[in-house]
Amino acid sequence: MAVRYELIKTCAQTGARLGRLHTPHGVIDTPTFMPVGTQATVKGMAPEELKELGAQIILSNTYHLFVRPGHELIREAGGLHGFMNWDRPILTDSGGFQVFSLAENRKITEEGVTFRSHLNGDKLFLSPEVATHVQNALGSDIMMAFDECPPYPAEYDYVKRSTERTSRWAERCLKAHERPHDQALFGIVQGGMFPELRRQSAADLTSLDFPGYAMGGLSVGEPKALMYEMLEETVPFLPAGKPRYLMGVGSPDALVEGSMRGIDMFDCVLPTRIARNGTVMTSQGRLVVRHAKYIRDFSPLDPECGCYACRHYSRAYIRHLIKADEMFGLRLTTIHNLHFLVELMRQVREAIREDRLRDFRNEFFEKYGMEGNESGF
Amino acid sequence: MAVRYELIKTCAQTGARLGRLHTPHGVIDTPTFMPVGTQATVKGMAPEELKELGAQIILSNTYHLFVRPGHELIREAGGLHGFMNWDRPILTDSGGFQVFSLAENRKITEEGVTFRSHLNGDKLFLSPEVATHVQNALGSDIMMAFDECPPYPAEYDYVKRSTERTSRWAERCLKAHERPHDQALFGIVQGGMFPELRRQSAADLTSLDFPGYAMGGLSVGEPKALMYEMLEETVPFLPAGKPRYLMGVGSPDALVEGSMRGIDMFDCVLPTRIARNGTVMTSQGRLVVRHAKYIRDFSPLDPECGCYACRHYSRAYIRHLIKADEMFGLRLTTIHNLHFLVELMRQVREAIREDRLRDFRNEFFEKYGMEGNESGF
Repeated sequence: MAVRYELIKTCAQTGARLGRLHTPHGVIDTPTFMPVGTQATVKGMAPEELKELGAQIILSNTYHLFVRPGHELIREAGGLHGFMNWDRPILTDSGGFQVFSLAENRKITEEGVTFRSHLNGDKLFLSPEVATHVQNALGSDIMMAFDECPPYPAEYDYVKRSTERTSRWAERCLKAHERPHDQALFGIVQGGMFPELRRQSAADLTSLDFPGYAMGGLSVGEPKALMYEMLEETVPFLPAGKPRYLMGVGSPDALVEGSMRGIDMFDCVLPTRIARNGTVMTSQGRLVVRHAKYIRDFSPLDPECGCYACRHYSRAYIRHLIKADEMFGLRLTTIHNLHFLVELMRQVREAIREDRLRDFRNEFFEKYGMEGNESGF
Repeated sequence: MAVRYELIKTCAQTGARLGRLHTPHGVIDTPTFMPVGTQATVKGMAPEELKELGAQIILSNTYHLFVRPGHELIREAGGLHGFMNWDRPILTDSGGFQVFSLAENRKITEEGVTFRSHLNGDKLFLSPEVATHVQNALGSDIMMAFDECPPYPAEYDYVKRSTERTSRWAERCLKAHERPHDQALFGIVQGGMFPELRRQSAADLTSLDFPGYAMGGLSVGEPKALMYEMLEETVPFLPAGKPRYLMGVGSPDALVEGSMRGIDMFDCVLPTRIARNGTVMTSQGRLVVRHAKYIRDFSPLDPECGCYACRHYSRAYIRHLIKADEMFGLRLTTIHNLHFLVELMRQVREAIREDRLRDFRNEFFEKYGMEGNESGF
């Protein structure tokens, strides 16, 4: 068994679970946030920095690596772990989401998706079999099934056909999987914003007995309340002994809300993307360190934070670096934001352990000012 | 005394000196190469990385910091050391070279230079007094006198007038210096490519008894042989008990040749600039890791190198990062190139200690293939 989920306890105040995910490259404490390393690197970060800030697992994108530098090259390099010098667990997505959002001129058939590379227009093909083969070459600890991710909003009939196809594709992925002994393939529950389709998708996938399940097609533009409702409609139908992963979610409020609804794993480019724009998450809410008001502010990004950036550098210095287009500024804001989310998840786990995640949520939201925030951050 | 030079020994084969430079922020083994941190950061590097690769001192640029974020802000931040979290020695240049090469619409008078900022066109003024005041605010261990750097080629009469002015300005810098107890102000020998003017400049400056002397106005486009000739014409007229700094020189061959002629300190943006373009210095000569031939090359940048990049990453990975515009690629090539020069200087010091620098030079050039290289690299 490539991956084994160990449920330690459930929070008495919420549906949150404290657990451990055992993988060939180490153990992950859950609920967890996974930094995104799209092109075999978490933008600007060295592996040692990710470890220092507490990251236990990272995500990388199959679509991007398939397009460049190619999965066979990475296989020759000893897989993604060897290629990028990361010896902790890696999760790869299937490329499904990207071919639907990034690629040009995509054409979907039952067989798979033909598309043109966003880099050079090359005609490429991804299918359940190809996406699985590529991830086998990458050697990730956790692979994702190749799915179709409907946009939001979408019509019931379209979502129904798409979700049924995702179930058929999931079965093909399982059959194509060459390394079940050391790579775990997760299924992805789709169903758009239709509880009935979500439940059907969950039933289809759980009947295939995947070692883990993701919630896909959420955080695609719908109101957060609707996303939470979809979680509530679906999570109860997933087996308690398997990990649950909410894809593409990384705002502090949604990490807490998702955990409360029984989610164990999250990923998102949000913390790293806004960092490169000079925006950081702090215990007092978000802070745009580029702003002129921080020009002579010699305090750290977040006085309550213990990350490398906050221990050694001021807002004034980081603002200077960003205004001067200096890479090191983006390193510091990236370190800070990733540390913020990793530390938030540590606090969430602690609150679950002590049966007080609802209290934690209320205190956190009051301080952070996130209540009702629909902006995604 | 802010800075004290300790001459350990002179090479029996060459004019090279092994020494130690004692400063308020620590001791520097000389000859040494100083990485350049123009805007209060060595591009892409954390201070810890610079220390790991062996950097004992860095250089920062007065002109850039004067223009942005301003020296008073840096003074408030606890000086450049506190602002950028670097607790080892810092040398700042005077801004002289930059106002002559970077600034727009500069107008030179005996009083100083009026110019427009290259960032926003603001009208600014630098003079011996202002440049000294700014460096006092920055708090560097070693400051440079405000000089005029003639272009190459230049007429004798122009260079003569310019060199005489540099001598008068040097005296004004000394008078304006507010912190001689903890900051050492070095004079800059000019004189273009005219031995007579170089000697006159050296005589003028040594009569003012600076704690150290720089060779300015070299590596400005002249053939390297001419630069070496100028060193030979000037260095003998500098006091043996003071450090000698060759400004703007950082190609491996010139570091060795300069050391052989009695130079103790060097700086250059070359290693960091070419790194960001995907070019690295190796024991076998230069290597453009961007090139397609390295796409499946899983060996390190330099098999003989022990830097962080070479210990953990392949040419194939670094090439992928650079092709994909990933910051981490530039970090790795920058680390490698700085390590290469720092390690080269360690070997130079070892060769001086063992009275075999000429032998070392010949072996190094044969392997590196630099003999007669006029490209600056």
